[in-house]
Amino acid sequence: MTMAETWINETLYPDWGQRFLVTREFARVKSDFQDIVVFESSSHGRVLVLDGVIQITERDEFVYQEMLTHVPMLAHPCAKRVLIIGAGDGGVLRRVLEHKTVEKAVMVEIDGAVIELSKQHLPNIAGDAWNDPRAEVIVGDGIDYVAKAADGSFDVIIVDSTDPIGVGEVLFTDEFYSNCARILSDEGLIVNQCGVPFMQSDELYETSLRRAKFFPHVSAYVAAVPTYVGGFMTLGMASKGQAPNTQTLEQIRGRADAAKILGTTRYWTPEIHVGSFNLPPYIAEHLPKTEK
Amino acid sequence: MTMAETWINETLYPDWGQRFLVTREFARVKSDFQDIVVFESSSHGRVLVLDGVIQITERDEFVYQEMLTHVPMLAHPCAKRVLIIGAGDGGVLRRVLEHKTVEKAVMVEIDGAVIELSKQHLPNIAGDAWNDPRAEVIVGDGIDYVAKAADGSFDVIIVDSTDPIGVGEVLFTDEFYSNCARILSDEGLIVNQCGVPFMQSDELYETSLRRAKFFPHVSAYVAAVPTYVGGFMTLGMASKGQAPNTQTLEQIRGRADAAKILGTTRYWTPEIHVGSFNLPPYIAEHLPKTEK
Repeated sequence: MTMAETWINETLYPDWGQRFLVTREFARVKSDFQDIVVFESSSHGRVLVLDGVIQITERDEFVYQEMLTHVPMLAHPCAKRVLIIGAGDGGVLRRVLEHKTVEKAVMVEIDGAVIELSKQHLPNIAGDAWNDPRAEVIVGDGIDYVAKAADGSFDVIIVDSTDPIGVGEVLFTDEFYSNCARILSDEGLIVNQCGVPFMQSDELYETSLRRAKFFPHVSAYVAAVPTYVGGFMTLGMASKGQAPNTQTLEQIRGRADAAKILGTTRYWTPEIHVGSFNLPPYIAEHLPKTEK
Repeated sequence: MTMAETWINETLYPDWGQRFLVTREFARVKSDFQDIVVFESSSHGRVLVLDGVIQITERDEFVYQEMLTHVPMLAHPCAKRVLIIGAGDGGVLRRVLEHKTVEKAVMVEIDGAVIELSKQHLPNIAGDAWNDPRAEVIVGDGIDYVAKAADGSFDVIIVDSTDPIGVGEVLFTDEFYSNCARILSDEGLIVNQCGVPFMQSDELYETSLRRAKFFPHVSAYVAAVPTYVGGFMTLGMASKGQAPNTQTLEQIRGRADAAKILGTTRYWTPEIHVGSFNLPPYIAEHLPKTEK
């Protein structure tokens, strides 16, 4: 071709990363919180980038969204009230609402520009979730929200944040986890992404250590997300009820059946759910020894 | 810094891929078969590149080598005679010889330059394997080797090839699989890499279909290799004996114990071994329906 090619390099790590050939740029915005880019790639469809870090692509979003959502939703015996923090693209909200058991899903995203740009340029990711009567979408600070919410308000909290730098940093603090424990119901649990341990090994360790102060059960599970490059990413789970990594295949399949999730997924299955808590030793060594 | 930075871009896909900041280049050679580059990166240690495609890095080689080796070795009830095709860096040979049950390991690599450059610049990958009295290293054509080998000569065949383009293409043919089936013993099995299905979905399908002509059991398992970017890679297995995906955790743990593999690994565990045959639906759909 005669036109110069435009590539976008991810800048998450200074010396390694992925790059995309850009076929069209939809938005390049500096919001009150971060730099936002939305572009089209021939390899992955549309891509959302925050502060130089790939957040979601149309082609592989199902992996992250299914594992971030279905695992905690089904690790809980009957999740009815769900709090989502971050996830401005709406993909988690959509997956949460797929569970027929859910009565209420509150989503708190600090950056309204991410929601607006996602609605405009990534409409397939949230689908009709924005209009579901069970959904309440708040543009606001998740830290404030959990500080003010009533005790025992939620069964599941899903934190879909950026890495613990920049705007997402406060979602990895003692104060935040303490409030989350308080506003969860007796069998409540919280999940948040803990990075890619091969590249960011401290993230899993430090997050797990912090949550262990407020939750009796702290565990982690893995997902192979194509554009979170570097092998498995880990998702950290902390639970007030049953340890989520002790549940059986039959329990998980039964709950998924009740929630009408079976057969709707492209990555998650009951077998993968249960198996995802078996960590490779190179990842398990970054979990604090708070629980055997 | 004032010096210009040197990056190496992987060229496997035309519109997406990974890039490494190069701190030192050790070799850039055109062998009789392919372009070979060995360089040092601050992110992944030393890296071997063939025809623009990342083959192995010092930092993450354990994931690929352990899963390519230990899974077939322990899926077999008692692997004593092993044939390795390709794998010129010596990493598979080293992992095979870690199994105390192994009596003989023959390695056939077509490109002697890969072996020489690996010995010189990547000595940690093979360790002392080159000098093990059980090892026979042949610089030659794997296709010819399997055509001439006697019936039932091997218990396990491990094919560590490049993708089915260029020099590796002949390792994905009917003739090759037919001979492999012939030279395997009654409970013999073969494994080969089948690419990253998220990016190369045809590879798993076509390889599995071809092997199903010559083997009663065809299956696949997954590994999350950090520098084979794009989510799970699949490793295809074809077996003359027991279906490898029906073996129990206790069987695998018992065999690993006998082979003295337990506790030596950083990715492979008995749990991960058994769980790795549970494929996400987006991968399972690329397996031909030859077996339930």
